[in-house]
Amino acid sequence: MKVIAIQGHGGPDVLQLVDRELPAPGRGEVRVEVRAAGVNRADLLQRQGLYPPPPGVAADVPGLEYAGTVAELGPGCTLRQLGDPVMGLVAGGAYAQSLLVHERETIAVPEALPLAAAAGVPEAFLTAYRALFLEGGLGAGDWCVIRAATSGVGLAAGQLAGAFAAQALGTGRDAQRLARAAATAGFAATHVEGSGPLAEAVRAHSGGPGAAVVLDLLGGGHLQENLQAAAEEGTVVSVGLLAGTQDRIDLGALLMRRQRLIAMTMRSLPLERRIALARLFERRLSPLFAAGRLKPTIDRHFPLADAAEAHRHMAQNHHLGKLILINTG
Amino acid sequence: MKVIAIQGHGGPDVLQLVDRELPAPGRGEVRVEVRAAGVNRADLLQRQGLYPPPPGVAADVPGLEYAGTVAELGPGCTLRQLGDPVMGLVAGGAYAQSLLVHERETIAVPEALPLAAAAGVPEAFLTAYRALFLEGGLGAGDWCVIRAATSGVGLAAGQLAGAFAAQALGTGRDAQRLARAAATAGFAATHVEGSGPLAEAVRAHSGGPGAAVVLDLLGGGHLQENLQAAAEEGTVVSVGLLAGTQDRIDLGALLMRRQRLIAMTMRSLPLERRIALARLFERRLSPLFAAGRLKPTIDRHFPLADAAEAHRHMAQNHHLGKLILINTG
Repeated sequence: MKVIAIQGHGGPDVLQLVDRELPAPGRGEVRVEVRAAGVNRADLLQRQGLYPPPPGVAADVPGLEYAGTVAELGPGCTLRQLGDPVMGLVAGGAYAQSLLVHERETIAVPEALPLAAAAGVPEAFLTAYRALFLEGGLGAGDWCVIRAATSGVGLAAGQLAGAFAAQALGTGRDAQRLARAAATAGFAATHVEGSGPLAEAVRAHSGGPGAAVVLDLLGGGHLQENLQAAAEEGTVVSVGLLAGTQDRIDLGALLMRRQRLIAMTMRSLPLERRIALARLFERRLSPLFAAGRLKPTIDRHFPLADAAEAHRHMAQNHHLGKLILINTG
Repeated sequence: MKVIAIQGHGGPDVLQLVDRELPAPGRGEVRVEVRAAGVNRADLLQRQGLYPPPPGVAADVPGLEYAGTVAELGPGCTLRQLGDPVMGLVAGGAYAQSLLVHERETIAVPEALPLAAAAGVPEAFLTAYRALFLEGGLGAGDWCVIRAATSGVGLAAGQLAGAFAAQALGTGRDAQRLARAAATAGFAATHVEGSGPLAEAVRAHSGGPGAAVVLDLLGGGHLQENLQAAAEEGTVVSVGLLAGTQDRIDLGALLMRRQRLIAMTMRSLPLERRIALARLFERRLSPLFAAGRLKPTIDRHFPLADAAEAHRHMAQNHHLGKLILINTG
């Protein structure tokens, strides 16, 4: 089979289409014929050698999410059958024509979702769902702040907040792109970064004491604003570091306002937790995709062989929504 | 009745014994004749004007915990009867001969615990229990770090860890005082502050990847050490700021290790949450006090009228365990 491999770390051109052997699926595993793979910012870092995958994962084939069909069953499979459309998270290796996963970590593609769109679902929606609801404890009626709203995770978070009867204020640097994000993902309010104090905007829009949850992808230099935008006993969930890694923290204010700061990543999840999230996705999110309440925002598709071009496009930061690689076979 | 009131903020001598009227207990309330009240570091701050109580609480009478007997029942009481020995947390006002509380926020004093000792239980044990188990999620078999172990909360945390089959490493600046704390509270290991990297000590003692929970009372300047001492996906629970309020944070490391930082206070808890903790205490901790598995560490008793002397003693930092004010009538 063909895969996109990183041939020496560096710019997009180190991504090369090469041949690889795939072993037969082991006990409980399935081989998925990949129809499409989502591109994530972590892939760009991995290409540059800045984000090595966890132990046990091939370091040179990027790709954290896929959609495809079950093409081979290992011994002992009971959940999936040949031909089933599935999608899911992997710790690497999705830029490929096929991959091996445990059948229980696959997510049945919801009705009416094309595979080319489904590949843009797992990373954005599971990250946002876990951050807002499982880690942050967001509830119906609560306000949350999504920073930044124009990211893949941000767009998913806006939809999820709405679907679960919470309200989201989305932030972004570019007013036009933010307005498009709001129209796409249904943000209840928006705030252009740098246009004034975020905490005041949150209080003005929510009419309340601040956000129950702040989902942050920016990181360094933004912590104080995030904590100020959060309500007393509110939670800042850190899922990205687009703006840097170092910051100051006022522990006195944190204690006075009884707040919490939680950092999470998806890629480091061991198998059993990917499985748990997959099962939860099918129960809680799949019905909303089937009903059209949730849908991935796709910016553009690229042939798998043009992965380098997709990376260049992402680095320009003009996209809104997911970039998807298509295995044209 | 007599109370100790803060007559102008300042040194210990602003604490003066004065007369106050207490209204009759309202619906569901009881009047407790206070036998003893615990002294907490927050009282010293309040005396200096640095820690005003929450709205609705008299600002000039310190005291966050009490033990006594039910002396009067308001209308509608069903849980308590006259003469019941009770203890509990209040947001202020315990340096007094009587106080009014809702009957459901009182905790029945466990069998065999004298009232003069019971007054040293609620703040230390509820803070430590909530921090380690409710916020931190400590489980049997887990390691935790208690920083500092020689504080009232620290001593309670060491006992609680042991009683719930977890292991605690306690830290302290003074090796002798720390050794006494370990003997008193049953710490599985100790580490003298400044004697080497805390994270290495934790790993050496636990033989594992770090602490599931770090309970921190130090605050500013200690966050990085706390996060390094915590395991991946571990939690630092901040309950005090003895060393300062400002710090730096490496969000990159936080994300890489998927850790969490939670700040909590007890004094700000609204009635319904004090009630919930009181009910939980009776269910989970009272049997352990009755069995002698848990017991408060008392350093010294003072007559209520000598509250200033108790404050001076606490400020010297030579005590180990609770300072208790006794209402000698």
